[in-house]
Amino acid sequence: MSKIVRKNGNGRYSEAVIHNGIIYISGQVGDPSGSVADQTRDILAALEEILAENGSDKEHMLSAAVYMADMSGVSEMNKVWDSWVIPGFEPARVCCQAPLVSPAYKVEITLVAAVKE
Amino acid sequence: MSKIVRKNGNGRYSEAVIHNGIIYISGQVGDPSGSVADQTRDILAALEEILAENGSDKEHMLSAAVYMADMSGVSEMNKVWDSWVIPGFEPARVCCQAPLVSPAYKVEITLVAAVKE
Amino acid sequence: MSKIVRKNGNGRYSEAVIHNGIIYISGQVGDPSGSVADQTRDILAALEEILAENGSDKEHMLSAAVYMADMSGVSEMNKVWDSWVIPGFEPARVCCQAPLVSPAYKVEITLVAAVKE
Repeated sequence: MSKIVRKNGNGRYSEAVIHNGIIYISGQVGDPSGSVADQTRDILAALEEILAENGSDKEHMLSAAVYMADMSGVSEMNKVWDSWVIPGFEPARVCCQAPLVSPAYKVEITLVAAVKE
Repeated sequence: MSKIVRKNGNGRYSEAVIHNGIIYISGQVGDPSGSVADQTRDILAALEEILAENGSDKEHMLSAAVYMADMSGVSEMNKVWDSWVIPGFEPARVCCQAPLVSPAYKVEITLVAAVKE
Repeated sequence: MSKIVRKNGNGRYSEAVIHNGIIYISGQVGDPSGSVADQTRDILAALEEILAENGSDKEHMLSAAVYMADMSGVSEMNKVWDSWVIPGFEPARVCCQAPLVSPAYKVEITLVAAVKE
């Protein structure tokens, strides 16, 4: 096994937890003033940065969960998601409608990824 | 660690991602014209096929998440689920109500499983 | 790899599944007659007991998912959560609003944790 590394804890959750070559990333949200597309872009930029900070990248994603506060925005989210994901390196994914901590958050995404060898 | 194998990617998600002996399966849905029971049977058949294709089976499930578009159908889903799961090999599970990508989808299930030794 | 150990299966799900040093815990709920705070305390006590029974503890949590039947109770849940989590040992977390199997359940929490070395 291996030790557990925690990044940017705030007393409630850690931004990322790394254990045994796996990175567990907390639900990321975007600037609440933005559109679904804006917030999705914010989230994917944040995820990409967290992956990079922890020895991983978009080619090492394992699974993602996408929470839409309102499913009517799913096409707008997917358009940004699809242009971000590298073909051939898609994670497993689930997407459902679930209101988030603040009504201003339209999208939230969690990610599990592998650390690069 | 180990390499990452991805199955049936569509530019958005992979049907399954295999890494370090673990299979992460994307949310599976059934034929949208069917009842809760019908869709659940479709989903469990799909999961069983994906497990088989990736060196696993119903005896190696680790955790599942069940999303019900309307929780009023939970007994109907559970009846199919309970008859499918092998006693003694139940995964950890969570079940919540969350509308899905299309309103016609009544159930969606994700699964994490172990590859057989 | 390693064998799979399942605890307290009921034909539908196992309370916990342990594989390769990781514990997957089913969604825990509290006494449905209690407040959000009461139910959260019940859940965290149950999680702590399940962790202890399986060679883990609060310092080895990797990721959690919190389901609120009504997000208006999130501050009440977080107050109990924050006082329970040990600073420096926060798991990754996501929190969303999703009605649960019974309307009386106000909170449900799943957890993935590492077995202690």
